[in-house]
Amino acid sequence: MLNVGVIGCGGMGRDHIKRVTERVQGAQVVAVSDLFEEGAKKAAAIAGEGCKVYNNGKDLINDPDVDAVMIISPGFAHVDDLLEAIKVGKRVFCEKPLCTTAEDCQKVMDAEVASGKHLIQLGFMRRYHKGYQQIKEAIATGEYGEPLMMHCTHRNPEVGTNYDTPMAVTDTVIHEIDLCHWMVGDDYDTVQVIMPKVTKYSHPALKDPQFMILKTKSGVTIDVECFVNCKFGYDINCEVVCEDGALKMGTPMAPSIRKSAQASTEITTDCFVLFKDAYDQEVQNWVDRAADGVIEGPNTWDGYLAAVTADALVAAQTSGQIEKVNTVEKPEFYK
Amino acid sequence: MLNVGVIGCGGMGRDHIKRVTERVQGAQVVAVSDLFEEGAKKAAAIAGEGCKVYNNGKDLINDPDVDAVMIISPGFAHVDDLLEAIKVGKRVFCEKPLCTTAEDCQKVMDAEVASGKHLIQLGFMRRYHKGYQQIKEAIATGEYGEPLMMHCTHRNPEVGTNYDTPMAVTDTVIHEIDLCHWMVGDDYDTVQVIMPKVTKYSHPALKDPQFMILKTKSGVTIDVECFVNCKFGYDINCEVVCEDGALKMGTPMAPSIRKSAQASTEITTDCFVLFKDAYDQEVQNWVDRAADGVIEGPNTWDGYLAAVTADALVAAQTSGQIEKVNTVEKPEFYK
Amino acid sequence: MLNVGVIGCGGMGRDHIKRVTERVQGAQVVAVSDLFEEGAKKAAAIAGEGCKVYNNGKDLINDPDVDAVMIISPGFAHVDDLLEAIKVGKRVFCEKPLCTTAEDCQKVMDAEVASGKHLIQLGFMRRYHKGYQQIKEAIATGEYGEPLMMHCTHRNPEVGTNYDTPMAVTDTVIHEIDLCHWMVGDDYDTVQVIMPKVTKYSHPALKDPQFMILKTKSGVTIDVECFVNCKFGYDINCEVVCEDGALKMGTPMAPSIRKSAQASTEITTDCFVLFKDAYDQEVQNWVDRAADGVIEGPNTWDGYLAAVTADALVAAQTSGQIEKVNTVEKPEFYK
Amino acid sequence: MLNVGVIGCGGMGRDHIKRVTERVQGAQVVAVSDLFEEGAKKAAAIAGEGCKVYNNGKDLINDPDVDAVMIISPGFAHVDDLLEAIKVGKRVFCEKPLCTTAEDCQKVMDAEVASGKHLIQLGFMRRYHKGYQQIKEAIATGEYGEPLMMHCTHRNPEVGTNYDTPMAVTDTVIHEIDLCHWMVGDDYDTVQVIMPKVTKYSHPALKDPQFMILKTKSGVTIDVECFVNCKFGYDINCEVVCEDGALKMGTPMAPSIRKSAQASTEITTDCFVLFKDAYDQEVQNWVDRAADGVIEGPNTWDGYLAAVTADALVAAQTSGQIEKVNTVEKPEFYK
Repeated sequence: MLNVGVIGCGGMGRDHIKRVTERVQGAQVVAVSDLFEEGAKKAAAIAGEGCKVYNNGKDLINDPDVDAVMIISPGFAHVDDLLEAIKVGKRVFCEKPLCTTAEDCQKVMDAEVASGKHLIQLGFMRRYHKGYQQIKEAIATGEYGEPLMMHCTHRNPEVGTNYDTPMAVTDTVIHEIDLCHWMVGDDYDTVQVIMPKVTKYSHPALKDPQFMILKTKSGVTIDVECFVNCKFGYDINCEVVCEDGALKMGTPMAPSIRKSAQASTEITTDCFVLFKDAYDQEVQNWVDRAADGVIEGPNTWDGYLAAVTADALVAAQTSGQIEKVNTVEKPEFYK
Repeated sequence: MLNVGVIGCGGMGRDHIKRVTERVQGAQVVAVSDLFEEGAKKAAAIAGEGCKVYNNGKDLINDPDVDAVMIISPGFAHVDDLLEAIKVGKRVFCEKPLCTTAEDCQKVMDAEVASGKHLIQLGFMRRYHKGYQQIKEAIATGEYGEPLMMHCTHRNPEVGTNYDTPMAVTDTVIHEIDLCHWMVGDDYDTVQVIMPKVTKYSHPALKDPQFMILKTKSGVTIDVECFVNCKFGYDINCEVVCEDGALKMGTPMAPSIRKSAQASTEITTDCFVLFKDAYDQEVQNWVDRAADGVIEGPNTWDGYLAAVTADALVAAQTSGQIEKVNTVEKPEFYK
Repeated sequence: MLNVGVIGCGGMGRDHIKRVTERVQGAQVVAVSDLFEEGAKKAAAIAGEGCKVYNNGKDLINDPDVDAVMIISPGFAHVDDLLEAIKVGKRVFCEKPLCTTAEDCQKVMDAEVASGKHLIQLGFMRRYHKGYQQIKEAIATGEYGEPLMMHCTHRNPEVGTNYDTPMAVTDTVIHEIDLCHWMVGDDYDTVQVIMPKVTKYSHPALKDPQFMILKTKSGVTIDVECFVNCKFGYDINCEVVCEDGALKMGTPMAPSIRKSAQASTEITTDCFVLFKDAYDQEVQNWVDRAADGVIEGPNTWDGYLAAVTADALVAAQTSGQIEKVNTVEKPEFYK
Repeated sequence: MLNVGVIGCGGMGRDHIKRVTERVQGAQVVAVSDLFEEGAKKAAAIAGEGCKVYNNGKDLINDPDVDAVMIISPGFAHVDDLLEAIKVGKRVFCEKPLCTTAEDCQKVMDAEVASGKHLIQLGFMRRYHKGYQQIKEAIATGEYGEPLMMHCTHRNPEVGTNYDTPMAVTDTVIHEIDLCHWMVGDDYDTVQVIMPKVTKYSHPALKDPQFMILKTKSGVTIDVECFVNCKFGYDINCEVVCEDGALKMGTPMAPSIRKSAQASTEITTDCFVLFKDAYDQEVQNWVDRAADGVIEGPNTWDGYLAAVTADALVAAQTSGQIEKVNTVEKPEFYK
C-alpha cells in the first residue's frame, strides 16, 4: 500500500483524492495540505478517517508516514515542493505544468539528475488515453514505417473571456506538445503559429482559431488546429502519416443514431468525460511502478521540453516567424 | 439511333420521356400513347417536334417508325401490350410489375419463350444502383465464398392512408424480391412474414413495420425489415454474409458534419434522389444492348418470379406461416 | 470490505479471484473451494495469504468469515450451492447459467422469493458493456419512442468440433436472450429458429449459421444472426429500431488505418478483450450494492427466463416451428 | 448541337473526344488537329465519319463548321490557340494549365476582357466532383457560418523519377489551388511550404511529402498535405472548418467488408476512377451553357490566379519563407 500525501486541495486536488481513495488500487491518501485550512479539511474528509491535514507542502513531504506525494497546487507553487521532494527522495506525481518557467523546470531537472533517482511523473494524462495508446502501439509494430507527419485538432466548445491568446498554447496545445513528441519519439526543433480568420465567437484578447506547426529534430512535421470556440464539441483528433500507412485515432464508442434525416453520433462537450479513464490510469500506473522506482509516464524532461516549446510557441504567436526551440541537450539520465 | 415509343404518359412516363430525350445516348422518343389525349400531347411536347401521338398501345407498337417500346402504363394494362410487342417482335422496356397476376406473367413468359427472342426488360432499377452492383461484383470475385444470409432494410419516411398491409409486399419489398435473388443467383423456395409491434405512426389498415424472411432453393436466408413510417428517412441497407466475409452496402457520398455536439451525415428522404442514376442507367443499358438483341437487366422470368413470390408473401402476411413459393420450372431459355 | 468466498477454481474461477483481488474495490477473496484440492490451492495463492481452502461449496458458504459467495463451478453444480446460500441468506454472484434445467431455476427462484431477500446476481456480463448501456440509456430518454425491432449479430471466428447445434442457443445466443429482453424491458412470448445454408467451415454436428427470432409479449421482434465460424472476428452488433429513430450500437475505439488500398479498423477475435471492462464492472457493481442488499444486475428471474427461452429455442431448432416460451407468471418480487 | 473542334490528340485528347462522342449530350466532334498526322487520324476515327483532320490549331479554330474548341495540347502550346479563339470569338474548353507562365495567362486574360465575351473554361474538373460540390453547397446555406480553415490531403500511391519537387505544386496541388479558393470564395494572399521528413520511397530530386499552407485575403487558412508516394491509394480529403460547424468531404460509395479481423473499405488507386463523373460533367456543363454564352466553370481569372499562386509556392519550396501571391487586381469582368 502506497501512502500518499496530496498538496493542493482545490477542485483538481479533491478529484485526485477521490480517485486514489475510490478507484486506484494499492494506494491511499494519508495526508493533505493546503494554505486554506477549510479546504484541506474538506479534502481530508474525502480520504476518510485518519487523514492528516497540513497547511504547507514541506511538512507534508517530510512526514515519515507519507511515502509519495501528489502536487496539485497552482503551477507557480510547484518548484519548491518538487525540490523538497527530490531532496528527501520521495516519489512525486505532479499536475502539469512542471513549473511555470523553463528556468524552474531546468532547476528541478538538474536536481533530479543529481539525485540519481527517477522520482517525478507529470500529469499529462492523455498519454493514458486508449486512442493515443492504440496509435503509439501501431507505430511501434514497425508495420507502417517511420512517422512523417501528424495532423491534430484540439477543439473546445467555448472559453470564457479570461482565456487569452497565449493560453491557446499554455492551456490547450500544451497537451499536443507532450503527446506528439512522445508518439513519434523525438524532441522539437522549431515551431510556428499561423493566425487564420477569427471566429465571430471570440473576444478581443483572443485570436481563435490558431494553427500551430511543430517540427521535430528528425523532421516530423506536426500541425495542430487549436479552436477553442468551435461550438460543436470537445473534439480531439489525431492522424499520424507514416511511410507505409496513415493511422487515424479512433473515436469513443457511441451509438449511431438515425433520426430526422440524419445518421449521427454524439461528440462529447466535456473533456473530463473523454479522459476520465485516462486520469484514473495515469495515477494507477504511477502507483503500480512505485515499488521498482520506475517512472513510465511523462517525466521531468518532458515537463522541461513542454515548457521550452510552449515559450517558443508563445513567441511565435506574436512574431509570425518560425521560432527555434532552444533546449539544453537531453541528459543521458532521461534517454 | 433507337426510335422509342412510350405507352403511358403519367408522371413516370413523362420522366422516362425526359430521360430518353435528355440523358440517354443513342435513343429518341418518336411516339407516345395514352388514353387521355391531353396527357399524351403534353408528353409528346417533352420529346420535341415530330413525336407522334396515339391513344392506344397497339397502334403505337405497330407503327413501323417505332423500333422499341417502353410500357409505363398502369400494371393491369401491361399484359395486352406485352403480348402485342412479342407478336411483332419489338424490344420492350416495361415498368414493374410485369403483370398484376402470376397467370398473366406466365402467359407473357410463354409467349416470349415461344417467340425465341429475348425482348422484355423489366424496370427493377435498383440492379443499376452502384451500391448493389459493388456487392454483386465483390461476391463474383469468389474471395468471400458462398453467400449464406442477407440482411436488408427498406425504410420509408412515411406513407399515406391509401397504403395498406399488402402494399408492403407489392410496392415496397417487391424491390428486394428482385434484387436479392439476383444478388445471390438463386430463386425462392419459401417465405414468411412476422408482424412486430406496430408503430404509433401507422393506421388501421397497415401493419407497420413488417419483418419478412425469404429462403432460396439453396438455403440462402434473406431477412427484410420493411418499415414505411420510420420517419427518419429513405434508408436502404443490405448486408450479405458469406462463408469468408460479410459485405455491407456502402452509403451514398455525403459530407460528415460536426455541429451541435454531433457528427452527422444526411439520410435522404427521397427515393428518386437515391436512385436517380440507377433509373438513367437501366434505360441506357436497355438501349445499348438493343443492337445485339440482348436483355442484360431483369427479364420476364424475374417478373414472373417476383409476382409468384409476392403472392406467397401476401398469403404469409395473414397466415403467419411459412409459405411455399410455387413457380413453374425455370425455362432453359432464361438460364 | 466484502469478504468473498469463491466456489469453483477453474480458469473462469481464477479469473474472478484475480479480478476481485486486483481490480475490484471494496472486496477481497477470503476462501475458495474446489473438488480438486490442487486447483483450489493454486487459486487461493492468487488471493494471497490467509485465503482458506475448502473442498466443497457447503462448508465455504457456512464459513462465518465469508460474507458473500461467487459460484463459478460447472452449471450442473449450481443448484445445491444456490439453495444453501439462500438458506443462510448470503449474497451470491453466480456465473451463467443459473441452473441447467428450468425446473432447477424455478426451485431456486421459489426459494429466493420465499426468503424475501434479493440475493442472487447472474453473470450475464454484457449488460455492463458500454455499447449496450449506451443504447439502453438512449431508449430510456424516450426521445426515440417505443422499441419495435432489434437486429443482432453474434459472430465468432470459429468453434471446435465439440460445439454442436444446441450450443448455438445455450452457449452463444444465451447472451442475446438476456440482453434483449433487458434492453426493451419485456419478456418473451415465442421463438423460432431458421437454418440457412451451412458454411463450409462447419462440421456434421453443427448447423452454422443459425437465424433466430424472438418475440416479446408486447410484440417487439428480435432477430439474431448466430454465426460461430464466421472466420473474420468476434463481431457483436445490435440495432434497436424504435418508432422515432434507430439506434445502432457503437464499435470499440480503434484506429482507422490506411494501407494497401484500404481504410480499415480492426475487429477483435477475442471476446475476453471485447468484454474485459464488462467483467470487471459486473463484479464491482455486485460488490457496491452489497451494503444495501440490492441486486442491480441480472437476477434469478432473468436466469429462469433465459433457461425457459433457451429450451424453447432448442426445441425450435429441430421443429422448425414457432415455439411458445412457457414461463410461470413473473413474481411480484422481481417487478 | 454544338460542333466541337479538338486541338491535341494525345491520350487526354482522345479521352475527351470519346467523352463528347459517347457520353455528352448536345455536342459532337467535327474536327481534330495534331502536329502528328497519324495521331490526329486515329483520334478522328473515334469521333466517327466526317470528322475533319487538321495539323494545326489555327486552321481548326477558323473552320466555319467549328462552333467551339477544346484545347488539349501540351500547356506551352495553349497561349497561341487561346488568343486565336478569342480573336474569332469562339467558346473554348482548355485543359489545365491555362498557360505555363503568369505572363501568358495575363495576356490571355487581357484579350478576353477586351473581347467583352466570356469564352474560356479551364479543365479543373474537380469542381464537378460531387464531394466538393456537397461541401460548397453546405457552406452556401449559411448554416455553418464563415469558413475559417481548410485541411486537405492530396495523396498519390506513387510517382516516377521524372516527377520532381516543383511538380508537387504544378501537377498535384494545382488542383487544391483552384478548388480551395473556389470553395471559400476568396483569392490568395500568401503561401508557404514546409518540408517534413522525406519518405524512403522518394528519390533525390523529390522532397516528398510536402506540407503547404495558403492564406486567402480574408484570412482563411488552408493546409494541404501533398504526399505522392503514400503507397496506400489515391486519397483525397478535405475538411472546411467554419464558425458554426466543420464539414468533411464524404467518401465514395464502397462496400464495408468484414474479413480477416478487419472492417475495411477500398481506397481507389486510380484518380481517373475517382473523377470519372467529374470529367464528364465539366464538359457537359461547358456544352450546356454554350447557348447563353456563360462560363460557369473555372474561368480565365482562375487560370491566372492558379499560375501566380503556383509560382509563389514553387518559390516557397526553396525559400522556406512565407511568400506573397502577387496578382493584378481582379478585373470587374470576372466578379
